Amino acid sequence: MSESYTIGLDVGGTKSLGLLVDRHGEVLAESRVPTPQGSQELLDTIADVVDELRALSGRIDGVGAGMPGLVTPDGRLRYAPNLVDADELDVVGGLRHRIPEPILVDNDANCAVWAEHTAGVAVGHDDVLLITLGTGIGTGLVVDGRLPRGANGFAGELGHIIIDPGGLRCGCGRHGCFETVASASGLVELARRTIAEGKARSLLGSVGGDAQMLKGEHITRAARQGDADALEILEEYGRWVALGLANYATILDPELVVVAGGLLVEGDLVLAPIRRHFGQLVMAADHRPPIEVVPAALGERAGALGAALLARPG
Amino acid sequence: MSESYTIGLDVGGTKSLGLLVDRHGEVLAESRVPTPQGSQELLDTIADVVDELRALSGRIDGVGAGMPGLVTPDGRLRYAPNLVDADELDVVGGLRHRIPEPILVDNDANCAVWAEHTAGVAVGHDDVLLITLGTGIGTGLVVDGRLPRGANGFAGELGHIIIDPGGLRCGCGRHGCFETVASASGLVELARRTIAEGKARSLLGSVGGDAQMLKGEHITRAARQGDADALEILEEYGRWVALGLANYATILDPELVVVAGGLLVEGDLVLAPIRRHFGQLVMAADHRPPIEVVPAALGERAGALGAALLARPG
Repeated sequence: MSESYTIGLDVGGTKSLGLLVDRHGEVLAESRVPTPQGSQELLDTIADVVDELRALSGRIDGVGAGMPGLVTPDGRLRYAPNLVDADELDVVGGLRHRIPEPILVDNDANCAVWAEHTAGVAVGHDDVLLITLGTGIGTGLVVDGRLPRGANGFAGELGHIIIDPGGLRCGCGRHGCFETVASASGLVELARRTIAEGKARSLLGSVGGDAQMLKGEHITRAARQGDADALEILEEYGRWVALGLANYATILDPELVVVAGGLLVEGDLVLAPIRRHFGQLVMAADHRPPIEVVPAALGERAGALGAALLARPG
Repeated sequence: MSESYTIGLDVGGTKSLGLLVDRHGEVLAESRVPTPQGSQELLDTIADVVDELRALSGRIDGVGAGMPGLVTPDGRLRYAPNLVDADELDVVGGLRHRIPEPILVDNDANCAVWAEHTAGVAVGHDDVLLITLGTGIGTGLVVDGRLPRGANGFAGELGHIIIDPGGLRCGCGRHGCFETVASASGLVELARRTIAEGKARSLLGSVGGDAQMLKGEHITRAARQGDADALEILEEYGRWVALGLANYATILDPELVVVAGGLLVEGDLVLAPIRRHFGQLVMAADHRPPIEVVPAALGERAGALGAALLARPG
């Protein structure tokens, strides 16, 4: 059997990554480009990256693209708040004249969880939730060994379940979504609320008294130095993350939760409170094996790698 | 091809129903018995019902049983708060010496949604949520045309997602579960809270001034007669039900929600507020087709019928 290659792309809000991958999941080459504004520019950039990587292998068997938003099964972006002018963009149709190989488009978090399931920390686990704690929350699901699609291809947006009705307004226009309290931005918001209550003075001092300057790294740095207020903020943050994970477990009974995103560089400082509260909040904890919460293994390449793996010919 | 029959049972907290079903899903006979207390008595009763129905057809190809609780893939009850002394009961193993045919045990709501998907209102829909609004909330899921199992067979317990943190204590021991506010009992609780605020005097009068006597039917009857407080309670109830449905839609993107349970005899009085709030609360409403919310078609037979359909040979 001759070697088979696919190309996977992870199209982000500001930058995009393309990978040339063999059928074992080995990465042979990569290409990084800024994500342009405008839908035609976006399609041209994707095609350019594919051309560049295809030239290295001579021949490829498929192209996969992970996109940040709701993607229909036929490869149309329905709702992509982090891309400029891309809502309702027909990605597969728009690339057809430039890319002759089969093209698959999916949500970026779907691609990432597929990579972890196929070649990362979730190999051998058929029921997996991947959650990315970033500016927002991205989630990808594996259910009974498959990526659930749903009626419109929109399955998997755990970041927008409402768990704090009457809470903060979310970017999606509703109130109290999981990501308003459990994303990295949600962590900063928790700290600002603590400061507004007159607490966490030293944390406020670390940003010169201006709470608007506060970032997640100020909180984790203070916590590392033993600051009690910062540790308490991380504890509350962990409880919110755990609450959303517990709700997912109640509905889909995973055996593994994989956590990704910038906050994960902090390791157990962030993970330990999540694990502690998750163990308490999960339903019927006495009647099921514990659900492990582990860091992702594939880092920033997960999305592009998963897109390449999904694009492998059946 | 000769006719093929299966037997399906729906084992409830107080009574059980057995059906003899042909391969077209036609019900040929039924048997109703009280559900006994005690695990050996329960197994004996199931076997007796099967013997009775098998005698009518001469030969059957399989037996399915829907049970109220968490059921493992090999047919063991893990957690069944509404059955006496049945936690950890090995149903398949315990029936083996009395029932020679293949035996399948599943959660009762899984069976019910499978019946609606195969022979009821959800035929032709591959992404379906069935929700039963009763003393608690039961839910069954069809995802991409299949019943998702999860790692332990526990998938599908939407009634226990936490949507009101800091809210009422739930029977499961945690606080603010969906069923504390959105079951029929939750409806009564909402009314009692309204009464405790000094409102809904006429509703209180309808139960002789004793809020503990209040049942769902008092609220719906008052609402039917135009009582503004009762209508407002149903509106708030509809918002809570819709919030849980919206969270499900965010994660699994169904095309249809099927509502079952005693409250459904009230029809649009109960359904209209649910639909209204669901339309507003669902994520990305402008970017997806509306998700229909419809009454169940198969009534109290759904669980047993679904169990019989699931027990059909491959």
